[in-house]
Amino acid sequence: MKLKVYADRLSQPVRAVIIFCEVNGIDYEEIKVDLANREHLTPEFAEINPMQQLPAIVHGSFKLFESHAILIYIASSFPGVADHWYPADVYKRSKIHSVLDWHHSNLRRGPTLSKTESFWLDDNRPFLLGQNQPSIADLILVCDIMQIKLVGETDWNRLLGPYKKVQQWIENTRNATNPHFDELHKVLKELKEKLQN
Amino acid sequence: MKLKVYADRLSQPVRAVIIFCEVNGIDYEEIKVDLANREHLTPEFAEINPMQQLPAIVHGSFKLFESHAILIYIASSFPGVADHWYPADVYKRSKIHSVLDWHHSNLRRGPTLSKTESFWLDDNRPFLLGQNQPSIADLILVCDIMQIKLVGETDWNRLLGPYKKVQQWIENTRNATNPHFDELHKVLKELKEKLQN
Ligand SMILES: N[C@@H](CCC(=O)N[C@@H](CS)C(=O)NCC(=O)O)C(=O)O
Ligand SMILES: N[C@@H](CCC(=O)N[C@@H](CS)C(=O)NCC(=O)O)C(=O)O
Repeated sequence: MKLKVYADRLSQPVRAVIIFCEVNGIDYEEIKVDLANREHLTPEFAEINPMQQLPAIVHGSFKLFESHAILIYIASSFPGVADHWYPADVYKRSKIHSVLDWHHSNLRRGPTLSKTESFWLDDNRPFLLGQNQPSIADLILVCDIMQIKLVGETDWNRLLGPYKKVQQWIENTRNATNPHFDELHKVLKELKEKLQN
Repeated sequence: MKLKVYADRLSQPVRAVIIFCEVNGIDYEEIKVDLANREHLTPEFAEINPMQQLPAIVHGSFKLFESHAILIYIASSFPGVADHWYPADVYKRSKIHSVLDWHHSNLRRGPTLSKTESFWLDDNRPFLLGQNQPSIADLILVCDIMQIKLVGETDWNRLLGPYKKVQQWIENTRNATNPHFDELHKVLKELKEKLQN
């Protein structure tokens, strides 16, 4: 029963899900749904995800969408996912839910960066919530912030410049998940070059 | 170690948390933070929730904000919360995460009502996801939809009119959680009357 991941690597939550599968050695099949070609709007894909968005997964007869729910499902049902990704401890787990929910209801970049710097990364640990290793929350937030790269280096530097902890944390998350992190973010560079020509 | 709930009953996620505590017999203390008086913007409250929003809880030395995360925490750490509120089964639990996340990232009322009718309540069971008893997702979504009542009966009838399953489901959730549901929604009626005078 191989996990099917419906994906377009231009989507930031898709990248988070695929990096997660790669880092954790999960045997999955990536099924391309081309957003630019509006393939997510076909009746075939509506059978997979009635909300017609990416990412979505199918695992046997079980269908699921929403990236946070998908990461929690994979972390909970595949053996071999290290505890730090989605800790069993109810307090740690609750804080991960809190940061993910907060991020979902607050997608403006400015406040996100500033609150991440001043609150979520407050304790000089390498990852969110004082963890020494990354959780699904690090992956989701960093992949989202990486989308700013698409806008260009100037904006990236202007937006990220004031936030030293955020910059270090992105680097930590990248290092903890490479070579998959860089591999999955190649599309951003490629798209940027395409847009500039 | 009594649970402290920082609350203003005019907030829909606050109402969901309090109804949940009442229905499950959880011993909690409600601490009023008056949004209209901007009490959530005080430095004192920033110590409780740095994002300065309601609801927030404190349980011993553990602080938490974001209503979904709060409900999951209470369901997971207080004895006596029936399984249907947040099922241990990974498939059921994942679907609850999915509907909650979807709701969070899609707060426009129109699509919410129509997708709830056509997809989430698709199987003629009384509650979301084919459950026979309510989950935290029913409570969160219904409390949010109830906010429309504030706008007035005419809008309520116009918006809810086409959605028979949604209407029945609101009634089911109300019945499953009364008298607490009605008690908590009194504030809406009172505020509406105040606004009309
Ligand atoms: N809250 C969803 C967001 C999903 C989402 O917005 N996906 C985008 C790509 S990043 C998409 O499919 N957009 C196509 C559309 O909405 O029509 C999640 O985290 O999975
Ligand atoms: N995503 C949050 C939303 C919290 C929220 O928006 N709370 C509102 C009341 S419903 C609030 O505190 N507003 C005051 C403010 O944002 O200044 C949750 O579900 O807990």
